[in-house]
Amino acid sequence: MEILQVESALVCTQRISGLQTTSLRVLRSASGRRQVAVDPVGARPGNWVYTVSGSAARYAAGNFEVLTDLTIGGIIDSWEPNA
Amino acid sequence: MEILQVESALVCTQRISGLQTTSLRVLRSASGRRQVAVDPVGARPGNWVYTVSGSAARYAAGNFEVLTDLTIGGIIDSWEPNA
Amino acid sequence: MEILQVESALVCTQRISGLQTTSLRVLRSASGRRQVAVDPVGARPGNWVYTVSGSAARYAAGNFEVLTDLTIGGIIDSWEPNA
Amino acid sequence: MEILQVESALVCTQRISGLQTTSLRVLRSASGRRQVAVDPVGARPGNWVYTVSGSAARYAAGNFEVLTDLTIGGIIDSWEPNA
Amino acid sequence: MEILQVESALVCTQRISGLQTTSLRVLRSASGRRQVAVDPVGARPGNWVYTVSGSAARYAAGNFEVLTDLTIGGIIDSWEPNA
Repeated sequence: MEILQVESALVCTQRISGLQTTSLRVLRSASGRRQVAVDPVGARPGNWVYTVSGSAARYAAGNFEVLTDLTIGGIIDSWEPNA
Repeated sequence: MEILQVESALVCTQRISGLQTTSLRVLRSASGRRQVAVDPVGARPGNWVYTVSGSAARYAAGNFEVLTDLTIGGIIDSWEPNA
Repeated sequence: MEILQVESALVCTQRISGLQTTSLRVLRSASGRRQVAVDPVGARPGNWVYTVSGSAARYAAGNFEVLTDLTIGGIIDSWEPNA
Repeated sequence: MEILQVESALVCTQRISGLQTTSLRVLRSASGRRQVAVDPVGARPGNWVYTVSGSAARYAAGNFEVLTDLTIGGIIDSWEPNA
Repeated sequence: MEILQVESALVCTQRISGLQTTSLRVLRSASGRRQVAVDPVGARPGNWVYTVSGSAARYAAGNFEVLTDLTIGGIIDSWEPNA
């Protein structure tokens, strides 16, 4: 599982039906690479989270039919990215 | 899920039967790396999209039997790649 | 799906039984990285192809029991790698 | 499977229910990249371990319903990272 | 599938039960990155092999219940890594 920081919400008016009711977040890695994840835990910009990828991401979204490959698994209580 | 920009359609006269009726797009990452995805949403060159990978990509294509590992999940309303 | 160029066939006298009757190809990315894929379409050295990875690669090989993680999905009609 | 070194435990008060009872560890690769894994073997900071990823990680955690994509598979008896 | 060279066996006295009876090998890529794979073909140090990843790796190990994400698929008859 990766450790990423929440940057913002992602707005997509036009998307596939398999993701319609989920919240999407843009996450950024320590090296600056950005990815999109489903957020079932209510993370806010600035939070450090860990993410679940692959088929587990669908279960982690709370519903196997949510078509995601990356889901936030939890908010890390405290994290120093360059420790 | 990754954030990529649509570059062009991809033409393959000779391909496996599992992808025959889908539209393929060449996508480019912010770092210039190019990949091919199935497009079920009708994205146009220049659009920024997010993509679903892995086994979820097959469901996202609207049919689990479409043999893809990358499918466009939605068109992002506005995106600044180097924000 | 990735875009790769066929370099050569791969000869492995000693291999697991799950791949016995397939043709294997060495493919090279634009950056020079080499991978091995099952070829169900009859690609030739020099052809640019796109490849299907993950569990879809097994279906793409024409038989879910073929133990591959990378299968050629189609031959691209024309491709300029450094466009 | 990757070879990584255990750095510390990871504390997440707020997380998805699919991981509630597992121990999470922060692992570091030889190149310094950090990841989070479920630990079913009781590894300690400083131990070198190998990790199982993908859907096998869920089985490796001892319960397919644990929503992980990375699980410690074993503690390596002796390891020189820059050998 | 990747092309890697066998470096050595890997000894882990303490590991998860799902891998107990398999042989583990440390493999090294052309760029020096090391990974661990299950070896069902009897490869020796110095051999160049290709590896199967993902869920296919479990089947390739000869038993779907072997908890691996990387399995040696075959020994390459002759290989020049920097060709």
